[in-house]
Amino acid sequence: MFHWRMRVYWEDTDAGGVVYHANYLRFLERARSEWLRSCGVVQSRLREREGLALVISAVDIKFLQPARLDDEIEATLRLDHLRAASMIMSQQLTRVADGALLARARVRAGCVDAASLRPAPLPNHLREGLSPQ
Amino acid sequence: MFHWRMRVYWEDTDAGGVVYHANYLRFLERARSEWLRSCGVVQSRLREREGLALVISAVDIKFLQPARLDDEIEATLRLDHLRAASMIMSQQLTRVADGALLARARVRAGCVDAASLRPAPLPNHLREGLSPQ
Amino acid sequence: MFHWRMRVYWEDTDAGGVVYHANYLRFLERARSEWLRSCGVVQSRLREREGLALVISAVDIKFLQPARLDDEIEATLRLDHLRAASMIMSQQLTRVADGALLARARVRAGCVDAASLRPAPLPNHLREGLSPQ
Amino acid sequence: MFHWRMRVYWEDTDAGGVVYHANYLRFLERARSEWLRSCGVVQSRLREREGLALVISAVDIKFLQPARLDDEIEATLRLDHLRAASMIMSQQLTRVADGALLARARVRAGCVDAASLRPAPLPNHLREGLSPQ
Repeated sequence: MFHWRMRVYWEDTDAGGVVYHANYLRFLERARSEWLRSCGVVQSRLREREGLALVISAVDIKFLQPARLDDEIEATLRLDHLRAASMIMSQQLTRVADGALLARARVRAGCVDAASLRPAPLPNHLREGLSPQ
Repeated sequence: MFHWRMRVYWEDTDAGGVVYHANYLRFLERARSEWLRSCGVVQSRLREREGLALVISAVDIKFLQPARLDDEIEATLRLDHLRAASMIMSQQLTRVADGALLARARVRAGCVDAASLRPAPLPNHLREGLSPQ
Repeated sequence: MFHWRMRVYWEDTDAGGVVYHANYLRFLERARSEWLRSCGVVQSRLREREGLALVISAVDIKFLQPARLDDEIEATLRLDHLRAASMIMSQQLTRVADGALLARARVRAGCVDAASLRPAPLPNHLREGLSPQ
Repeated sequence: MFHWRMRVYWEDTDAGGVVYHANYLRFLERARSEWLRSCGVVQSRLREREGLALVISAVDIKFLQPARLDDEIEATLRLDHLRAASMIMSQQLTRVADGALLARARVRAGCVDAASLRPAPLPNHLREGLSPQ
């Protein structure tokens, strides 16, 4: 299980006084990018050197508790399925201060050719680094 | 069925050359706000006068085709279920130029007390304006 | 003088109850994109067909009054200087309901080669469409 | 001089392949929030306990070099002037990998009553923590 901590800033909140719902997806994405980095996959290099990109094809998210300005939140990531050209991850966001579960998401990402955006198999050297945990 | 058109600007895109996945949720939200406005519900007034807010509790979205800079996109909204303190909506995003279906989402919103964020019944005068289409 | 109207949505606001300061720059940019479109310059085509992009090199902005959720705001744009590879624009944001001046900005944009990001002269056919007003 | 490091994610970039210009203001704001935190000022508490907020009244920014996906960038902050109800800060953004100066900004913030948004003097206990460096 991968963990990544982030802080809530003004930019993340809305006039309701809490984090704007779409911005939880940004927190999830930062954690995915850091998980990939921790597995040796730097996405800018994946694009430049192999002409590949990982794109999100589906998100199913439940918003359970609101996060607020200055909250420190922790994202977790678990790789559930790794297929030839796609993967499914389970992610959660919790508030560090009290452990409250803020959001729970299931995210599907596909590997695509960065130019055509057509599905492309994940190279073996990537698949190995990403094996389910 | 409610329709709302929007333009894709630089702010909506990412370095992949397409609209950043989380920003489709902003397009969906603009369409919901305009649908509410068309039903006579102005959310800033709902908050000030009745102390109520509509918050998103779940989004299940499939990203089907990418949108790009300068694309005009159309959001649709259909109210599927209207309950005492929540509603479920189906939304789609299509590209106006070629009618390509870009994303399909199911969104659940709840009515809450704006201060405590606890569930609160939708006032009758609102429910009547929002009846399923 | 070019004019463009926009609505303030939840995504634009922050927990202070007003539009997040950096998001005024997004409103200014939408107005610039629409001004360019009105002059016959579609930026995605400029990039694809001529390999050029307009990038912002400086912004000097004063935030005078806050905008709020549901406000309709109008951006204006005046082209002050048009040089070989850059231009300077004056922009303002006002609230439509009461005419309040929300922000005043001076923006410098440069024409660059989209691949190298090095300065490139504005093609004559563009310069003609953009002549100072 | 205060320093704060951040990573560039997909959300920060645009279809030009670089960080979207308005998003540099978000990086600057994160660094200001962390600087305030390092001085003992937590803005959510400032609002709740003292009914005060710091709002940005002016930004003068030069964009010098583009940042890209995966770049680590460092923001610096120097407090230039501290007045009764406002302050002026100089901020810079550099890329950690090569030290390239990406942006240079001068930012004016004012202390306001959080409800009325009218100017309010900075309390002495805050002024002392923030004295120019």
